[in-house]
Formats: sequence, structure tokens, C-alpha cells
Amino acid sequence: MKIPSLILKQMYTLGSLENAEDGVRFSLKNRLSNATLTRLTEVRIDGQAVPLERLTLEMDGDRVLGSAIGPTKAVAFPLAKVMKVHAQTDQLPKGQHEISIAFETTPFGSLSFKVKDAIAERVKRTTVPHDKDNDYTPEIIKARQKFVEEYTGIKLQHIDKFSFDPEVTKGNIENFTGVAQVPIGFAGPLEVNGEHAQGEFLVPLATAEGTLVASYNRGMKVLNLSGGVTCTVVGDCMQRAPVFVFDNARDGRDFVKWVDANIDKIREEAEGTSSIAKLLYIDRYLANKLVFLRFNFSTGDAAGQNMVGRATFAACSWILENHANIRHFYLESNFATDKKASQINIMRTRGKRVTAEATIPRDVLIQHMRVDPETLAYHANIANVGAFLSGANNNGCHSPNGITAMFIATGQDVANVSESSAGVVYTEVTQAGDLYISITIPSLIVATYGGGTGLATQRECLELLGCYGKGKVHKLAEIVAGVVLAGEISLAAAISSLDWVSSHEQYGRNR
Amino acid sequence: MKIPSLILKQMYTLGSLENAEDGVRFSLKNRLSNATLTRLTEVRIDGQAVPLERLTLEMDGDRVLGSAIGPTKAVAFPLAKVMKVHAQTDQLPKGQHEISIAFETTPFGSLSFKVKDAIAERVKRTTVPHDKDNDYTPEIIKARQKFVEEYTGIKLQHIDKFSFDPEVTKGNIENFTGVAQVPIGFAGPLEVNGEHAQGEFLVPLATAEGTLVASYNRGMKVLNLSGGVTCTVVGDCMQRAPVFVFDNARDGRDFVKWVDANIDKIREEAEGTSSIAKLLYIDRYLANKLVFLRFNFSTGDAAGQNMVGRATFAACSWILENHANIRHFYLESNFATDKKASQINIMRTRGKRVTAEATIPRDVLIQHMRVDPETLAYHANIANVGAFLSGANNNGCHSPNGITAMFIATGQDVANVSESSAGVVYTEVTQAGDLYISITIPSLIVATYGGGTGLATQRECLELLGCYGKGKVHKLAEIVAGVVLAGEISLAAAISSLDWVSSHEQYGRNR
Amino acid sequence: MKIPSLILKQMYTLGSLENAEDGVRFSLKNRLSNATLTRLTEVRIDGQAVPLERLTLEMDGDRVLGSAIGPTKAVAFPLAKVMKVHAQTDQLPKGQHEISIAFETTPFGSLSFKVKDAIAERVKRTTVPHDKDNDYTPEIIKARQKFVEEYTGIKLQHIDKFSFDPEVTKGNIENFTGVAQVPIGFAGPLEVNGEHAQGEFLVPLATAEGTLVASYNRGMKVLNLSGGVTCTVVGDCMQRAPVFVFDNARDGRDFVKWVDANIDKIREEAEGTSSIAKLLYIDRYLANKLVFLRFNFSTGDAAGQNMVGRATFAACSWILENHANIRHFYLESNFATDKKASQINIMRTRGKRVTAEATIPRDVLIQHMRVDPETLAYHANIANVGAFLSGANNNGCHSPNGITAMFIATGQDVANVSESSAGVVYTEVTQAGDLYISITIPSLIVATYGGGTGLATQRECLELLGCYGKGKVHKLAEIVAGVVLAGEISLAAAISSLDWVSSHEQYGRNR
Amino acid sequence: MKIPSLILKQMYTLGSLENAEDGVRFSLKNRLSNATLTRLTEVRIDGQAVPLERLTLEMDGDRVLGSAIGPTKAVAFPLAKVMKVHAQTDQLPKGQHEISIAFETTPFGSLSFKVKDAIAERVKRTTVPHDKDNDYTPEIIKARQKFVEEYTGIKLQHIDKFSFDPEVTKGNIENFTGVAQVPIGFAGPLEVNGEHAQGEFLVPLATAEGTLVASYNRGMKVLNLSGGVTCTVVGDCMQRAPVFVFDNARDGRDFVKWVDANIDKIREEAEGTSSIAKLLYIDRYLANKLVFLRFNFSTGDAAGQNMVGRATFAACSWILENHANIRHFYLESNFATDKKASQINIMRTRGKRVTAEATIPRDVLIQHMRVDPETLAYHANIANVGAFLSGANNNGCHSPNGITAMFIATGQDVANVSESSAGVVYTEVTQAGDLYISITIPSLIVATYGGGTGLATQRECLELLGCYGKGKVHKLAEIVAGVVLAGEISLAAAISSLDWVSSHEQYGRNR
Repeated sequence: MKIPSLILKQMYTLGSLENAEDGVRFSLKNRLSNATLTRLTEVRIDGQAVPLERLTLEMDGDRVLGSAIGPTKAVAFPLAKVMKVHAQTDQLPKGQHEISIAFETTPFGSLSFKVKDAIAERVKRTTVPHDKDNDYTPEIIKARQKFVEEYTGIKLQHIDKFSFDPEVTKGNIENFTGVAQVPIGFAGPLEVNGEHAQGEFLVPLATAEGTLVASYNRGMKVLNLSGGVTCTVVGDCMQRAPVFVFDNARDGRDFVKWVDANIDKIREEAEGTSSIAKLLYIDRYLANKLVFLRFNFSTGDAAGQNMVGRATFAACSWILENHANIRHFYLESNFATDKKASQINIMRTRGKRVTAEATIPRDVLIQHMRVDPETLAYHANIANVGAFLSGANNNGCHSPNGITAMFIATGQDVANVSESSAGVVYTEVTQAGDLYISITIPSLIVATYGGGTGLATQRECLELLGCYGKGKVHKLAEIVAGVVLAGEISLAAAISSLDWVSSHEQYGRNR
Repeated sequence: MKIPSLILKQMYTLGSLENAEDGVRFSLKNRLSNATLTRLTEVRIDGQAVPLERLTLEMDGDRVLGSAIGPTKAVAFPLAKVMKVHAQTDQLPKGQHEISIAFETTPFGSLSFKVKDAIAERVKRTTVPHDKDNDYTPEIIKARQKFVEEYTGIKLQHIDKFSFDPEVTKGNIENFTGVAQVPIGFAGPLEVNGEHAQGEFLVPLATAEGTLVASYNRGMKVLNLSGGVTCTVVGDCMQRAPVFVFDNARDGRDFVKWVDANIDKIREEAEGTSSIAKLLYIDRYLANKLVFLRFNFSTGDAAGQNMVGRATFAACSWILENHANIRHFYLESNFATDKKASQINIMRTRGKRVTAEATIPRDVLIQHMRVDPETLAYHANIANVGAFLSGANNNGCHSPNGITAMFIATGQDVANVSESSAGVVYTEVTQAGDLYISITIPSLIVATYGGGTGLATQRECLELLGCYGKGKVHKLAEIVAGVVLAGEISLAAAISSLDWVSSHEQYGRNR
Repeated sequence: MKIPSLILKQMYTLGSLENAEDGVRFSLKNRLSNATLTRLTEVRIDGQAVPLERLTLEMDGDRVLGSAIGPTKAVAFPLAKVMKVHAQTDQLPKGQHEISIAFETTPFGSLSFKVKDAIAERVKRTTVPHDKDNDYTPEIIKARQKFVEEYTGIKLQHIDKFSFDPEVTKGNIENFTGVAQVPIGFAGPLEVNGEHAQGEFLVPLATAEGTLVASYNRGMKVLNLSGGVTCTVVGDCMQRAPVFVFDNARDGRDFVKWVDANIDKIREEAEGTSSIAKLLYIDRYLANKLVFLRFNFSTGDAAGQNMVGRATFAACSWILENHANIRHFYLESNFATDKKASQINIMRTRGKRVTAEATIPRDVLIQHMRVDPETLAYHANIANVGAFLSGANNNGCHSPNGITAMFIATGQDVANVSESSAGVVYTEVTQAGDLYISITIPSLIVATYGGGTGLATQRECLELLGCYGKGKVHKLAEIVAGVVLAGEISLAAAISSLDWVSSHEQYGRNR
Repeated sequence: MKIPSLILKQMYTLGSLENAEDGVRFSLKNRLSNATLTRLTEVRIDGQAVPLERLTLEMDGDRVLGSAIGPTKAVAFPLAKVMKVHAQTDQLPKGQHEISIAFETTPFGSLSFKVKDAIAERVKRTTVPHDKDNDYTPEIIKARQKFVEEYTGIKLQHIDKFSFDPEVTKGNIENFTGVAQVPIGFAGPLEVNGEHAQGEFLVPLATAEGTLVASYNRGMKVLNLSGGVTCTVVGDCMQRAPVFVFDNARDGRDFVKWVDANIDKIREEAEGTSSIAKLLYIDRYLANKLVFLRFNFSTGDAAGQNMVGRATFAACSWILENHANIRHFYLESNFATDKKASQINIMRTRGKRVTAEATIPRDVLIQHMRVDPETLAYHANIANVGAFLSGANNNGCHSPNGITAMFIATGQDVANVSESSAGVVYTEVTQAGDLYISITIPSLIVATYGGGTGLATQRECLELLGCYGKGKVHKLAEIVAGVVLAGEISLAAAISSLDWVSSHEQYGRNR
């Protein structure tokens, strides 16, 4: 199997070049595929060969001399592992240096490539205290709090108060120092007729926006009086979208055919990285000499961005290894579109695509919201023109309000409000004079497992909703959608009946 | 001054129709302008006149018989005030009823209008405990916690722990029951060369996303080594966008001319509602028989959505009173575009338009980010194609990550991540081979006063940044932008140098 | 097979209700499927039964009495055919009437439905002369010319001059009266390295825009000096996108699964309408209770909008017949998106997706365009920001100029400039200092057969390009793309080198 | 007045460097402002000074020796004029050369700059015959026709037939060789209630799309029966959008303030280039270190793109001359957005913003279109969702069909269908059960003067509409909008009543 050197260079990356006491160190990372080193042929630094006996390779703590490696003393070099190389040479001056390396492997045969890396300059700077061994002990946290107080001259009184063991934040945050305490109010209960969420739910909303809880609560009352809100997850997928650069468009188009022909193998590689992620399909977008592949996965109860990143990277590693004429490759180029509002998310789903709908009896709407169905629908028709002209990603009222408040409460990645802010509202006055109203959230990104869902208050809120852990993510998506529809009804009624400003005046804090 | 009855109906709204012990009560709200009632001419319920002596009007606790009102016993009825009317009549059955009312006023002369309102049906439902007098006492909060526990069967262990007096949440949340504790880590210090923020800032990031703090920290190091990040607020305005419906497009177009001719008076009305809000200009968008006016205000250190809503409403009240042929009016119709990502926000600013920029010396980039300027710029060029094809609101990497983490920490309205997620990244390799990189956040909505900024941990974080209170909002906007650029450099370098997945693997919690 | 009456009503449409001399006439169109009438059970007009012996059915000129139809005298009623019904009754007054009809069929059994139709009011109005038998004779054309002259008082001197037999316009236009004479200039020859277009092509451009031909010619010279332009069709599909309305989102989602399960049958129905159209795949977009199915077809050498409309309609007829709970159906609802610029066209192709690319040697660019590759690429980078902020469907310079001029010359549907105006330009300075530049036209709608391609000058221009008739459409797409790239280079160079206004001044007609 | 050399280089451009018999020639164009040369100080070619007495300057045929120029023999060098310079030196080799030039001027004082230009390589290529003196004579046209025939081997039979004197095409096309004959059919008359178009108009439609004329005709009948169509121009402006690059965002923001402070002078410079163009206002869009100024002009009866380009360039010349720290400048960067569909055009108008509207009586709609208002409005509501999801620039049916057919007939720049394809449709069922329907075309680009409007058939069609020449452009815009609404009603009714495919089948040419 012949591997072009460009790809090779990308697949074995050098890093951490640094001067050590007795020479130079650098590391070599295998991004290609499992391999076994059967011989180290040559290592050159700035063109100068380093004798093999002055080279030491270290993998997982085991060391071997460069000259000792051979068919009978092969070194396993698995995918994603880092091999540290130590060369007993003169120290290198600051700046960039070229290292070339050649070796023999099973099953890839002879490989060689050159890489430029730089000796990092040690820079002294003030940094937040950090404990390499365990950064989540009370001691180091206290040290950081003290550092913050000294650096800013402000005595901490609140962010240093929290109710949980900081160990739980490992994997969720670095430099943990304390917490933001965001007020939670409860709205509801809301009656949800989902496929997964069935019954009444008391909804925790973490927010600092006056009137928000009251407004959602008002909408929930109306939904309950209408027999509850019907919620359905109609789509579910998470994406990573690498880009491949070719010499020309023709090569790019042919590459897509090749991907189609090799989809089974690509799926196998992708799914080999996780017991959860399943590759659903790959969308392809061609422009110029670029091919964007948008991998769509199901990700169980996790939001899945990281899972999907790893799976796509594994698939791409196989692709790069097996397709000859890729000139450049990047794991992402704004087609995912992670942490962005985008037309592709609205159209083709990111996370959950979920619809909440209800038919509000005419009398209920008039009595409780002081607006009749025709007036509300009339306003919705006008608001469609507004959304169309302004290029908005949402033709409804304010779905991100409820989404954000639930995201903070339940430990979602709140930055995903970027995608989750999209909404499609549709209303009809029925033959009977009632109001059919629905919202589809096309890119709602939620999880009940992983990410921040295991944190203390976050997990507690999920438990209050009966949504913590595996097999619960569609239930949570349905509840969020139902809550969102409550808010839409409440604000749409307020705007179309003119009560809107006054509700802010009554509850909100005004200046 | 002649007031069309449609407008009149909108301007005096009836509400709260209910049966009382000895008759019927309803209220009348003046949305028009200060007025004085000099005679009550007639009140009819379902066509049936109510004798004036059986009517009692109550304003601010003072009562007067309907038959007693006269030029010598006039009743002041100021704008936005509610007058309660009590009619000693038979109780009304459930459902809708028509009330007509006629009176004489100074300075508007004789006014009469009909309104339909409904007797609200009393519905028994489970509700979250609420104390009408003071809903922020320890007792009622405890009652709510107990209710939540009983309703869900979950014992609260975390959300009921907070470090502040709950009174402080008044105006920020209803049904306050506890808090979400969101982990805070500190990144930096970051050197900012702003017009308002000058010096180094230690940045609190509230997040549950592993690697986020580390990634921003890495970018900050690079920015510091480049002499800091230059930040500039280039635009600042907050909007409310009412829509006016006319008989036809021609009336709409002429209305816009009329608005231009009356802009001074409109400004006066708008600015009369606040000592802070200043009307900058009114954008106008015409389609069909609709006219969308997008009012642009400066709002001091508040985000200003409510302030601007009130000011616009006051201006519109005057407009409705003084322009003859408006057929419908709504205070909002998706042109603001509040809590939405939109092209108009990207183009024409919402909140602060702020740019962060830096020139990263070639060596700094290579040594600390393991990528050269050409490679990073090459990827940015490709990512522009990706953003263009996918219809994204951001051609950069992940600005909402930093924005959201700072929003939660500092008490911003986090739902505004919808707007604030937009970003415009531009890179150049300079003649000297360095990397110029910048991001403009066109609709960053931040406040240092009002909203959630006064809450306990939120205020503390603002104080740590030297950004609490008046005169600080541009400083905060600059810091946010600088932090965002740090994150862009960090992730762009990781993607273009392929380190990206691995940084997640090292720090993040994987499944 | 049970057919719900709503669908039935849609599938057999009544039309042309009118009073005749001796009763009432109306027609019945079969939109369902081939059927045979084995008995006419009942016909009622406004509730009043019409005796079967007073009913006459007429199909293709054959008549049969209503009472005569029976198993032994069955009447074939094929799909899409119209049966005329004549009822000897009293004439009906103006306005709407309800007709109910019941019959027995093979294979559908008993069918009955009610329809409201209106007696059309005869309105006298001035109309353009029309000859029902043959509207393309010299006589009727002359009559129309005379009518135009008399109606407007203008003597025709030019539009009545044409070089072809007007019969050729049959199927292309109604009320044919003359021609627009649009000037044609030739640019080129242009060397194209396509898969279908290979060699040099002289390009007819029909335009009235001064400098256009000269500007494209200039770009062609540069492309030729660069070894020609490489052109590749990377996508090819034409769409029709019906919408189905359900009771709720859940039914909609389940419908999509049903479509997937029945895709073979749906394909068979769709492809049964044409020997050319092949169903490639069906995209599905769910929102609220709506399901948009976007049918993607290959259409040979025709643009294919009509072909695809018929095929989709046939498929939908089968769907409506076989899926129980569709509430409404429309053959189109802005998802096609025919005659529109749209993000979906840019992303997912409409017509041909074609890329033209070239590497312009540095010296060629400097000598002939007076700009160096870096300057042009610098401007392109800035223009990307402009396109992003303004929400444009094209980040290049002016591709619609060349496209439109070729569309008019070669008989394309020029209104498709709406879709075809989109473009994705990507530039790079190569390692060697040359300029790689390319454009992808994601939704280029062209034909070499059908539509206007058979008209006199239009066919002649296609023949000049060697592109008339079957098997030529990809060749034409490649040539168009190559021409477009010539124009991009020419204008991009002019803008980035500042020559732009002056070229207009030199050639263009200025005021 | 100090002029930075970068700007200076841009403002005096060198061009046409070529070897002559006795030396080297190049030209110098003044893009700055009127100036007078009072001394030629120095000219160097590739660093080598050329003796002033070996230099000859030629302006408008007058020659002067370089050494002779002086205060008493000053040479006027007006804006936009080209001075030819002849240096008696050795001939230059192929490739790039550097020329430096220094001179003294009134009023700018000493100026000097360097420019690189290349000796153009003479390339022999096949070219279309061209006559430098008069390219529109019968002889050269005949020569071109012969060339086309010989080059392609196709005998011309149609494109060489036209009814006009080819001289009329001067300024409209280069290499004029013949015409495309596009069939014209007439629809109407249509009753228009405009402010400028009043009465009935017979509408010429140039198209090859079967059913188009019939469909528009059908809609016109309905509009006439509804009392005609009301049309109003609600906006009118044409843009050019230069971009200015600064060192940083702060300089960019301050530049905008400077522009505001100097708006009167900028307007004067802009308006000095034309008796027609009036600068309405300048929109500004800031991102990164870029400032996009979008100049908005009124342009009388011309479409105005060229006029506006010149005016903006003149304004920018003054800006560049007077603002110190502009680093780069381009006259266009995708913010105009010429020949593009864009959100900014939809929002903020390009060309005419025109609305057509009508209330169709219920009976008229049912009788003539076989659909009731509710059904049509129901479909429109769904189509809004379709347009929103697909990211279309038009939520209506097919406005570009009518627009394109009128554009070809009346000599508009048909490539502007790109912009003109946008449409905003709004429908309501009125209280009386009638259908209010309207369309706003936000960026309709039309002219009744200049461009192709003076061509033979094109002018004739304008005259048939009473729209040729000055003071007619709003009339034409109104008629186009009225025609467009006819088409919207016709197709919307067909889709919502299901007649749609069949009308294509009846008239259109099917395969």
C-alpha cells in the first residue's frame, strides 16, 4: 500500500519538539491506522543524520533503542498513540527545524516523511494556578480562588459557594474555581402527549429574565386546557463535515463516487470508534475543487459532537489512506454547522428535529389570552413577512427563551442555543374556529447523558423531569418542544392582543 | 381631534371582566394619552344600558359614581393607568360579552367604543405555590421546594443551595425556587487594547464543556505574545420593530413620509419614557400594504430590550393617535429580530457591533499553535465556501462558546446567544508573513446594568472584570470580543493543524 | 380499494360547468388512475337527482346515455382524460352549484363525491384576436398585428419582421405576433477542456449591454493562453416538490417511512409518464404537520420542469390513492424552488451543477489583465465578506451576464436566470505564484432539446456550438461554465486593478 | 496636500507598456482630480533614469518634450484623461518592468510613484473580425457572419436577419453579427391603477415558454374583473458599494464619521459626473478592518448602474485624496449587489421597489379560477413555510416569468432578473370573503432610457406601452408589477385548485 507523503505527514504528526537535558525530544503521533514498526531506517534533524543508537523510542513508558528495533523486536504503534523520541544530539536553537524520519512497518511497508517543527520558546506569564496531577482537589481550587482575589482585588463571596464535590466537574471544565448561581423558577405542570414524554411535567427554568417564567406558565395553562401539547421527534442526527481538496472538480466528483462505493468500509471505520454512534448517511456538497462530506450520525442520548468528531476522523483516516489524490483535508470547514445558526440546520436537521402542536379551543384562547384565533393567525401571517424580509432563522416569537432556560437548568451545552434558536411556526384557524398552532425546532441539541448532564444541579433537574440518563433524550426533546410552544402561544397572544409591554411592566425590573 | 374607533378600541383596552358579589367588574386601561373624563355618557353590557348611578369608577383607590362625573367633578385618567369599573347588574354567564362605553374627555371630546371580553372560567389546576404579597420570602421558597419534591418524588439536594438573599432575584424570575450551579473556570489573563478595556483581564467562563477553558486559555497566550488584542466597538443600537397595516401600499408609503415629517415629535414621545433611551434613527421596510418601522435606540449600559419596547410603544401610541388610516398595529413582527439569528442583525447591528483583531507574529503562531499563517489562512478561505454554501451566520469557528460562557458568568440574557452567535472572521497573511486575524461580532447583546447583572455571582464576575454598573458596557463588549478572538485562533489553529480531535480527547469527558 | 372522498374529489375534478341550449354541461377529469365505468349510479345537481336517461356521457367524441352504461356497456375512463357530461335539465342561475355523482368502476368499486362548481359568467372584454383551430397562421398573426396597431395607435415596423415559419412557435408561445430582435455578438473562440465539450467554441452572446461581449472576449483570451478552461458537470437533477398536509407531525413522519417503503412503486408511477425522466431520489423536509417531498429526477437533454411536474404528479396520484390520512396536497409549495434564487438550489443543485476552473500563469495575468495573482486573490477574500454580509447568492462578480446572453441566444428559459444566477467562486495563489480560479454554478438550467431550443435563431446558435439536440446538454453546460469563468476573470481583474469604470466608459453608451 | 504613495499609484495608473520602433511607450491615466503638470522631475525604467529630453508627453494629440515642461509651459492633465509617454530608450524584454515617475503639479505639489507593468506579449489567435474605425458597417458585419459560417461550418439562415440599421446597436454590443429572434405574444389588455400608469395596457411578452402568455392573460382577466390592479412604486434607488481597507477597525469606524462630516463635498463630487444621478444616502457596513459604503442614488429613467459607478468612483477619488489612512480601495466587493439575488436587495431595495395589489371578489375567483379565497390563502400560508425552509428569495409563485418576458421585449438588462426575481407575496381573506393579494418586487431594475431601450423592437414595445423615453420609468415599473400579479393569481389558483399540470399539457410542448 503506497501512501503519498503529504498524507503521511498528516497521518504521523510530530509535536512537542523541545530541548532536553541531554539532547532533543519530540513525539510522533499515529493518526493513520494500527501499525507495527519493524525497523527504524533513518532520522535526520536539519539534514543531519542521528545515529540510530543515539535514538530512544518510548511508548507507554517502555523504551527501546532505535538501533534495536527489528523484525524480532518490533514495536506496536496503535492508532492515536503517541511515541516519544529522544535523540542524544546537541540542543537546537530557537525556531523551526526540519526533522525527517523513515521506518518500516507492517502492513504499510517503508514510510518516510519530513516535518517542520519549532522549538517552543518558554514564556513566563502569569497563569491561573494548576495542579498537573489532580486539578480538582479542594487545595488547588482554593489556591485559584485566592489567586483570583489577589489578582483582581475582589473578595469572593458567592462564586466560591457550591454544594457538590468538585471532582464531578472533571471533564467538564478546566481551572474549576467556583460556580455561577443562576436562579431557577418552576413553571407548569405542563401536560405533554409525546411518544416518550407522557403526562405532566414540572419545568425548571434557569433564567434572570423577569416575566419569562410567568409567561411560559401562562402558555402552559392554555395548553393544559387544550388537552396538553402533542410532541413528536421527527428527525435525529448529529454531524461532522470534513472537507477534501483536490486538484480539480473532476477528481472531487469521482471521489464522491468512490465514497459511495466504499460506504460499508467507511461506516465500519466510523462506527469502530464508539459503541453508540451509528453512521446514518453522508451528504456531499461539491464546489470548485472542494468536496464537503457531511457525516450524519445517530448518537444515542449524548448530544454527540465529540463522538461524531472522533468517528468522522476515523473514517477520514481510512479515506485518506485509501484514496490517492486528496491534496488537503480538514476535519471541519463550516458545514457541520456547529455552534452556528444556518439554513442547512433548518433544512436538514442538527440534533433533534421536534414538533410541538396543539389545537387551542376558541373559548380557551379568548378567555385566557384575550385574543381570538383569527387575530393571532392574522398577526402570524404578517410576522411571516417580517421573518422573510429580515432573513431570520425563526418566524415565531421567542423559542430561545425557554430553550436557554431549560438548557442551563439541565446541563446542556448552552452555546448550542446558536443552532437551537431556529424555529418554524405554523398556525391555522380550524373549520371549527379554533387555533391550530405548532412549532418545529429543526436543530435542537439536547442530551441526557454526557456533557454537563451529570453535574449536581443539572442532573437533579433532569431527574425532576424523569430525564436523566440513557434512553431519555427523546423524552427531553419532547418536553422542551412542549415548553417552547407554551411560550409561543403566550407571547403571540400578548403581541396580537397588545398586552405585551404591560406584562413586562408588571413583573420585570425596569430602569 | 377625531379618533377612529378601531384605534380607540386599541387605545382603551378593557380587561379582567369578572363577576363580583354584587354585579360585574371590568377595567379600562388608557393606552392613548393623558386625558380627563368630564362625563360618562353611557355603558352597555350586551346591548343593555346600565344606569349611571349603578356604576362606580375607581382610580388609584378613589371611587366615584358614574352619574357624579361632570365638568366640575372630572376624573383624571393618565396614560397607562387602569380604571376599574363596577356595575351593579346581574352576573354574567360564562363566555363572551360585549361592553360598549361612551364618555367625554378633555382634550379628545366625545369617545365611544365597543369591546368584547369574556368572563374568565375559573379552572382548578395544580400550580406552583405563590405568595401574592411577597413571593421571595424564605417561607414561600421553602414551600415551593417542598412542592417540587412532593410532585416529583425527588429530594432536592443541590438546586436549593445558594449563597444569596433571594430578594435580589425580584424582577429577574418568578417562582424562584433555587439555582443552577454552573461551573466557572478562569482563563487568562488576556491583554486587551480597547478604548474602554485597557490592560489584563482574568476571564470567568461558566461552562460544562470540557476543553473550552483550556482552548480559550491557549488562544489568550498567543494573543498576549502578540501584544494583546485590539478591540473596538463600532456600532451600538437596540431595536423594536412595530408593523403598521394599511389599506394599500400607497397609504403605507405616504405614512413613511409622514413619519419623517414628524420625527421630532416621535422622538420626544419615545424618549419621554426613559432617561436613558435615545432614539437614533428609524429604519423603514415596506412590503405589500405593511410598513415595518425598525426603531434604533442607544440604551446606555442596559441591554435595553424592555426599555426600547416601552419607548417604541409610546412613540407608536402617539403615531396611532395622530395618523388617520392605520388599519392594524402590532408592536413586533419579526423585524427586531429579538432572540433570533438574522441577516438584518448581521448587516445592521443589534446590541454592540464589536471587532477584535490582532497580528500574530509568524514565529508565535508556529511555536505555540504548530501551524503557519499560510495554512491557517488557506483553511479560512475554504471555510468561507463552507459558510456560504451552508447558509451559516458565522464564517468563523465557535465564537458562541466563549460568548455563552461569559454570558452565564456575568448575568447576561443568555437567550441572546441567538443573535450573538453571528460572527465575521477575516484573515490575511501580511507582507511580513505574519497572520492578521479579526472577528466582528455584529450583534453582541451585553449589559452591565439591569437584567441579571445584579445577581450575586453574576455581579461578582462583572466586578472581577471591573465591569459592573454604569459606564462599563463598552468595556465589557471589548473584553468579550477579545476572548472570542482567542478562541477563534485556538480552534482555527487546531483544525488547520489537525490537533483538534486530540485536544478533546485529552481533556474532554468521552463516552 | 377504499378511496377517501377528499382524495376522490381531488382525483376526479369537475370543471367547465355551463348552461347549454338544452340543459347543463360539465366535465369530469380522471386524475386518479385508469378506470372503467361499469355503472352510473346517480347524479344530483343542487340535491336534485337527474334521471339517468337524461344524462349523456361523451368521451373522445363517443356518446353514451347514462342509463345505458352497464357491465356489458362499460366506458373506459383513462387517467388524465376528460369526460363530458350533458344533463337535460333546467338551466342553472349564475353562481355556485353542488353536483354529486356516484358510479361504479373497475377496479375501484363504488365511488361517489360532491363538488361545488360555478356557472361562469360570460364577460365581454377586449381580447387579442385568437383562432381556435390554428392560431399560428399568417392570417391570424396579421390580424393580431393589426389589432395591436389599432389598440395602441403605433405602427409596427420591427417586431413584425421575422425570418421563420410561425408554425415553429407552436407550443412555445400563445398569441404569437412577432419577435424581439436581440443583438448577437460573438466572443471567442474559447478553448474548453470538458468531458463533453472539447476544443474551441465561438460563443454567441445576445445582449444589449455595452462592453459585455468585449469583457468576456478578454477573459477568453486569458483562458486560452492558460491552456483553456476545464469544465465538469458534477451534478444533474431537476425537481418538483409537492407538499402533503396531515393531522399532525407524527402522521407526517410516519408517512415518510411509508414513502421509503414504497419507493419502488412510486418510482414506477413517476417514470411511467416519460421515457426520459428517471427518479433519482426523494428529499424530505418536515415542518409542523407538513411534509415536503422534493423529487429529484434526471431529465436527459431537456430542462425538464414540465416532465418532472407530470412525473411527480403521477407519483403523487398513486400516493394519494394509497395512503390513508393525507388531508391536503399541493403539487408545489416553494420547495422546488422553480424560478427562484434559494439556498437549497445552491446547496443541493437544480439543473446542472457545473464547475469551470483554470490556473492562469502569473505572467499571463499580469501582461493581459494588468493585475497580479495576489491582488486579485486579496480582493476575492474581501468580496467574500461582502457576499456574506449582504446575503448574496453569488460571491463572484457577474456570472448572470454571460449566462443570460447565452440563454437568450440558445433558446433557454431565460427566467431560469433566477436560479442560474447563483455562483461560488474560489481562488488560490498557487505555490508557483499563479492564479487558480474557479466558479461552480450550482443551479444552471439548460436544455438542448425541447422548450425554446427548436426556434429558428435559437436552434441555429445551438448548432453553431455543436449543441443542438439529444446527448448535448452536458456539453452546453460545460461551455456556459467556461464562458462564465472568462467573465469572472475579466471583471475581477478590472475591479482589482481599477480599470473597471473605464472599460464601461470606452465601450458603453453613457448618458 | 500630501498624498500617500499607495493612493497615488492607484490614482495615476500606468498602462499599455509596449515597445515601439524607437523606444518604449506607456500611458498614464489621471484618476485623481484635475491637475496641471508644472515639471517632470524624473522617469526611471528598471531603476535607470531616462534623460528628460528623450521623453515625449502626448495629450490629446499635442506633444511636448519632457525637458520642456515648466511653470511657463505647464501641461493640463484633467481627471480621467490619458497622457501617453514615449521614451527613446532600448526596447524592453518581455515580462515585468518597474517604472518610476516624479513630477510637480498644481495643486498637488511634488508627486512620485513607482509602478510595475509588463510588456505585453503579442499572441496570435483566431479572433472575430473587427473594424477599429467603425465596427457597425454592413461590411464588417457581413465579414463576421462569413467568419462564423466558416469557423463553424454552419450556414446562417436566421440570426443574420434583422429589420434595423446596425448602427443603432453601437454602445449596446461589440462584434454585432445578427439577432436572436424571440417570439412575442400579447397578453391583456390589463387595467392598471397606478400613479403613473393609468388605464389599459396591451402587454408584449417575449418568451419561448408555452402557456406563459395564456397564464398571464388569464390572471389579467381576473384583475380586470376586480377593477384593475393597483400599483405603487414605494422605493427607487441604485447602488454602487466600494470597500475601503484600513489598518484596523478603529480607523474604519472613524472614517465613517469623517464621511458623515464630509457628506456635502462627497455628494458634490458624485453628482458632478452626471446631470441625472442624485446621491440619496450612503449606507455603511463595517466588518473587521473593512468599511463597505453603499452609495444610493436616484437615476432618473435609466437603470443607472454605469451612471452610479461613475458617480461613486468620482466621490471615492475625492475621498482617497482627502482621507489619509486608507490602505486599499475597490470600487466593488459584493455589496451592491449587482446581478445577484441578495437579502440586502430584498430588504433595502435595488432599482424600483414596487407593489401591485388587488382585492379579487369571491365570485370572480371561484368562477374564473375555480378556487375559493380560503383555499388559495391556505396554500399561501403553507408556501410561506416552504420558502422559509428552502431559503428562497421569493415566497410567491413565478414572478420572474413575466418579468423576464417583459425585460426581453422592452430592452431591459435581462441579467437583472437575478435581482428582479425576488418577490414578497401577501394574501388575506377579507371580512367580506374576498381575496386580497399583493406582491412587492423589492429590486426591480427597469429603464425607459439608455441601455437596450433604444433598440428597434425594444423601443417599439416600449412605445406600445407608452413607456419610451424620459419620465416613464415609474410607469413601466407599475405595469410590470401589475403583470406580475396577474401571473401570481393565475398560477396560485392553478396550484391550489390542481389545474396546474393540465394547463401545461394543453398548451405546452411536451416530449
